Order: sequence, then C-alpha cells, then structure tokens
Amino acid sequence: MNTLRNDAEKIYTHAIQCALPDTAVKNCLASMELHGNVVLISVGKAAWTMASAALEILGSQIHSGLVLTKYDHSRGALGNLEIIEAGHPILDENSFRGTRRALELTENLTSEDTVLFLLSGGGSALFELSELEIPELQDINSQLIGSGASIQEINTVRKRLSLVKGGRFAKHCAPAKVVGLLLSDVLGNQPDMIASGPVCVDATTCAQAKQIVEKYKIQLSSKAEEMMAVETPKTLPDVTYHICGDVHQLCKAAAEKSAQLGYTPVVLTSDLCGEAREAGSFLASIARSHADDQQKLAFIAGGETVVHLKGKGLGGRNQELALSAAEGIAGLSGVAVFSVGSDGTDGPTDAAGGYVDGNTKEKLLSHGIAITDVLAQNDSYHALQYCDGLIKTGATGTNVNDVAVVLIR
Amino acid sequence: MNTLRNDAEKIYTHAIQCALPDTAVKNCLASMELHGNVVLISVGKAAWTMASAALEILGSQIHSGLVLTKYDHSRGALGNLEIIEAGHPILDENSFRGTRRALELTENLTSEDTVLFLLSGGGSALFELSELEIPELQDINSQLIGSGASIQEINTVRKRLSLVKGGRFAKHCAPAKVVGLLLSDVLGNQPDMIASGPVCVDATTCAQAKQIVEKYKIQLSSKAEEMMAVETPKTLPDVTYHICGDVHQLCKAAAEKSAQLGYTPVVLTSDLCGEAREAGSFLASIARSHADDQQKLAFIAGGETVVHLKGKGLGGRNQELALSAAEGIAGLSGVAVFSVGSDGTDGPTDAAGGYVDGNTKEKLLSHGIAITDVLAQNDSYHALQYCDGLIKTGATGTNVNDVAVVLIR
Repeated sequence: MNTLRNDAEKIYTHAIQCALPDTAVKNCLASMELHGNVVLISVGKAAWTMASAALEILGSQIHSGLVLTKYDHSRGALGNLEIIEAGHPILDENSFRGTRRALELTENLTSEDTVLFLLSGGGSALFELSELEIPELQDINSQLIGSGASIQEINTVRKRLSLVKGGRFAKHCAPAKVVGLLLSDVLGNQPDMIASGPVCVDATTCAQAKQIVEKYKIQLSSKAEEMMAVETPKTLPDVTYHICGDVHQLCKAAAEKSAQLGYTPVVLTSDLCGEAREAGSFLASIARSHADDQQKLAFIAGGETVVHLKGKGLGGRNQELALSAAEGIAGLSGVAVFSVGSDGTDGPTDAAGGYVDGNTKEKLLSHGIAITDVLAQNDSYHALQYCDGLIKTGATGTNVNDVAVVLIR
Repeated sequence: MNTLRNDAEKIYTHAIQCALPDTAVKNCLASMELHGNVVLISVGKAAWTMASAALEILGSQIHSGLVLTKYDHSRGALGNLEIIEAGHPILDENSFRGTRRALELTENLTSEDTVLFLLSGGGSALFELSELEIPELQDINSQLIGSGASIQEINTVRKRLSLVKGGRFAKHCAPAKVVGLLLSDVLGNQPDMIASGPVCVDATTCAQAKQIVEKYKIQLSSKAEEMMAVETPKTLPDVTYHICGDVHQLCKAAAEKSAQLGYTPVVLTSDLCGEAREAGSFLASIARSHADDQQKLAFIAGGETVVHLKGKGLGGRNQELALSAAEGIAGLSGVAVFSVGSDGTDGPTDAAGGYVDGNTKEKLLSHGIAITDVLAQNDSYHALQYCDGLIKTGATGTNVNDVAVVLIR
C-alpha cells in the first residue's frame, strides 16, 4: 500500500473513531462534573452505546434511567437501566410508552438532581408523546410533508403537538439540572433541529405555527388546534447542551490526524452540500493549484453532498465525489483525494467511500473504463473496485455525515 | 456603500489592474535585462497595448518590430513598429502576411540580438503560416474539431502543419536570444497550449501526430503528410518565457489587496472549473463554516466555470456563481461573495460579475424573487440588478479568466 493510501486510512479511521457514540460521550463527560443523583435518559439509534459509555464513566452516580432505541438496537442489559425498543423511522405505541416512562423517571426531581439526556439520530420518531392519538399525529405529519412545507416549518408545527419536543422535556425536568449531549447527523449546527430539540429553547412561536397551518391548509381537529395555542418554553435556565459528536468534530479529528502525519490541515468547511461530482471537481481544482507547493497539505471538507441519479450503476455520494476528483487530479504525483461516510455505508453498497490518486484515471483507462462514462451511469462502485479505490470500514455505529480530504505531499 | 462591498470593489479593481496587458508587461520587464538590439514581435488581441508598454520601457533599444493583432484592435502608430491586422477567430491571408513579416524581421539575427515575443489571446489564428494553402489548413482543422479529438490532440497535429507553432518560431530566431512574455487566458499553466507554443519546446512527437490522424481518420494531402513527418524542436537553449499575466496572478493580486485591507487571504485554487452554481454553493459552504472565526478572511478561487443553459434569462457564469452563493450565505452577517470576469464581460451582459451578501436573499424575497426560480431561468442578471448586486467595470482590455472571492469580516 502506498504512503498516501496509508495516510488516508489513518486519517479516516481516526476521524470515525472519534465520532463513535461511546468515544464521543466519554470525551465529553471527561471535562464535565455532574451534580447529585443522575437520571440518565438516552434516546436514538445510538442510545444503547451512548448509555453504556456514560455508565462506564459515571457508575453508581447514575441513580436510574432509560434507554429508548430502535428495534434490534439494544445489545443487552445495562446496570439498572430500563431498555425500551420502539419504531423508527415511523413511530409506534412503544415510542409513546418509552417517552411516557422517560417523563415518569424525571418527575418530582429536586434542584440537587441532574438529568443526563443523550440524544442521537432517530430521536425524532423514538422520543415522542402527544395528547393526540398516533394515527392523527401521523395524518398531520403526512399532510405537512405532502404540502411542500420546509423542514423548519414542519418542525414548528410538530413542536406544538408534542409533550417533549421544543424544549418541553427539559421544562418537565425542572427544577433538576439538565445536561444534554447530542450526537448530530444534521448539518449546520442547529441543535433544535435534532429531534426538534427536547432540551432546547424553542425560537418559534404559536403565531408562526398558526400561519404555517393556514398557508398549507393543514386540517386539524379541535384538540390539535387547542395544542397549537400553547406556547413552548422560551427560557430554560438550568439546561446546558453540548454537541459531543457532529461533522464539525469529524473534520477536526481528520485535521488532528493529518497534522500528526505531517500535513498542514486546512478545514475548508464542515457544511458541504451540493452535487457530489461537482464537489469532487472543486476539490481537484484545489489539488491542482497546490500540488507544487512543496509542503504537505490536507484540505478537509465535511458535510453531505447529493447525487442526482441518472444511470443505473452502483455507487454512493462519497464514491462519486472521489471518482470525479480522479479526473481532475489525473497525472499529478503525490496527490490523493478520498471521501468517506462516517456510518460506513455509502449508498446501497458495502463500501464507506472512495480513494483516488493521480494514477487512478490511467489505471481505469487501461481497463477500458472512462470516468465520464462511469459518472454518466452512476457506477462509481465498480470503477473504484477495478482500481482498488473502494474504502470499506463496515457499519461503524455512528452517523455524523461525511468527510472528504485532499492530501498533497 | 457598505464596507464589504467597498472592500470587494478595491480587490477586484486591483486584481484586474494588475492583469492589464500594459501593467503586466511593465511589471515583467522591470525585473529583466534584455541584451543587444531588440526585435519586438507582439501577437494577439492585446498586441498593441503590450507593444506600447514595451516601447515605453525599452525605448530606442527596440530596433524594429511588428504588432500583429485582430481587425480594429490597433490604436494608432507606435514608433517605428509595423502594424498588421488580421482575421480572428478565423485566420485569413493577412494572418499569413503578418506572420511572414515576423519571420522576415527575425531572420539573420546574431547571438547579440534579442527577440522580444509578446503573446496574448487570439495568437492561435493570428500567428500562423504554413506550406499548405489556407483552405486546406481550414479543412484539416474542421475535420479535427468534428472528429471528437481533444484540444491536446488537435494541437499535436496543428503544430506540424505550421511554420511557427510548436517552438518553430523560436528556432527560426536562433542564434538570437528569445524572450517570450505570455498573457494567458488558458487555464492550467501549460504555456505550449497558448497559440500552440511558438517559443515553447514541443513535448509531442510525429509518431503521436500520426496516431491521432489515423485514430480520427483525418484525410491529408501528400504535402500535408510530408509535413507531418518533420519533427518539431526538442531543445531551445536560448529561449526563456514568462507568464506575465494569467489567472494565477489575478488571484495573487486579489490576495495582495485583501491582505492590505486586513483580510488573511487563502488562495484555494487558480484552476476552478465545473458548474458555476455548484462552485457558488461550495464557496458558500466555506463561508458558513468560517463566518464565526473571529478573523477577517478572504478565500479566493480563480478559473473559469461553465453554465449549462436551461432557462431563457440573462446572466453569466460569474453572476450565476454569486447568486447561487447568496442562497448559501443567507442570514450571515459580515459575509460576502463576489465573482468577476477579468475581461469585464460576463455572458451576454454589460456586467462583469456579481456581488452578494447575507442580506441578498431576503432583499430578493421582498421583491417576490426566489433565488431557486432565478437559477432555473438562468436569469441572474435581473435578480442581481434588483439588489444592487451587479458589478460593472466596462471592457477591461485583458482576459485572464475569472476570480471569485469569499470575504468574511
């Protein structure tokens, strides 16, 4: 394996390692002191792993608690914690049951107690309770999604129909202190976008929610209309929350490892969006301009690109980004580009992403494969397979989006 | 005018100023000493201005010379220099006549003499002479362009049919010293791509040219086949050439002015390509991630993007890049993105480019204009007009591609 490939592997392995739910929780709790008895509420697809890490650090300080996760996502008993599995991505009665139990465990606490709230992806469906019945809640949800409303608009309405979203869970815990640790798969660092912010002050208002309902002609029962008129908390003095893992930290970890390997890291963005192949082309143009800089450089871009499928091939956004970059860095020595999904799964493939260098285009041509044809077919997987460009990590158990890196040595 | 807009104007004005043909030639000659009598051969659309600048610096050291430029591009007598205007983009008899005159003026020189060769865009058609007649040359050219051959392949053949391309002009000047100053509108810093390199060693071979002719089934006369067998110069010991202006220096000048204004400049690339709106989106993602860095930053990307027209609006690649970025930086304070064509003309408009900031999206919305709709119509000009986002410089007289800048303060 050549040096660049070797360095790439070290960089993405370290970045993903730091983004694993247990590492993220441990790193975050290490610099924190929690007061009094701790009630642990861990919600999301990574709830079990996050709770397990908290238990390891806090031990008997955890007085009681609940793990509320997706079906088949629990991995066995965890001390005295209760474990409830529920529906995801579509909520079900167990979501209500689990959420009700979380409210019970955090009732009648004192200001000497602390609620440690661990939240990961999937929390939106798993952590939900409403005075409305599930079918009505789902009907309103379907109306909203079908209306063309933005995700912000949808959440503005959802928060009012929920007993835990829009900061209501944190308010329920008062006067106890609430400490939230969030593992985020949402771009752009808006914590209240993660599961509609159970422990975040809600910046939206009933007036806005009403406007949205009128704008999109959403049909509501009188009960639902009543709930729409109840305001969410606008101050939550005893609540703190921390992003313990997100794409920003994924980039930071990639930068750390790059620096250890002697590269000067430049984090371009942790909010990359747009078409995957165009991002690859942009990164390649950066590589071309800096290939002769006589210093080792690592340009890092985290985020989540999109692929507009036109062909019938196999691939994913990370593989397509990398393959597109291969065209732009063809012939350059000492230059590589790779892109990896932190969850270890890129598109409907067994690869996490792709790795290319200055020789990739020529290698493919020697197999009679032209990159432009491959991109037209969205068949990056098979092309990368031919040139040993697939990155495989297996499912990692976390999801904090993707990271793409240009290495120049 | 707000500070960011003011800074933007200073930056692009300075960058374009440094890329003007006369400034570029003067800056380059200032650090150079030419030996003996100088024969000046200035070719291209900016030939007159470049020759005028050289005359100002070198005065009577210029013994004789020729300005070979496009029709209507001469601006009057220049000392004792001859001036010939010819066809562009399609060569004509005057191209042959002018080029023949350049060969006459540079004949029988001694090693004490210097040929100063000034080359700007358009040189490919203007500076040409062949043993073939013009119609046959044009027929081969048409065959090559229609065949799907790459521009590199086309030039490999062209060089062999020409008496001046592929380093042959420099060889003709021997034993005189040849100093070439190139103003480049070609991306990627390959000097032999500019007018097929009259003063550059040719890296391609007769064997490659023959392969290309066979691959694309190009029909050649026996005379043309004879020429295809004559090798181009592989060493040119008395030749030096300098890029006196190109997109790399456009970026460098933008970085210099940014630094003077207190921004830390980061030149991302001087080889930007790809879809304009996607480049705008990428630059906006960089802006979002660095908006809170607490330092003044200028991210600079030079190059030339493309627009795939789908709508029937008015705009250009720089305007579309800027408008697309406006969507991505909406709501951010202290952030601006601008993009400008150094020639002062962006698309079929009277604008050179566009300027946007965090308020642009909202300003447009208040006029009932949604950026996504505007982009779908390729109507960036009218949208930018509504929000005072058009950058107008007038025709500048140079063309060293475009520069786009993210300003964060």
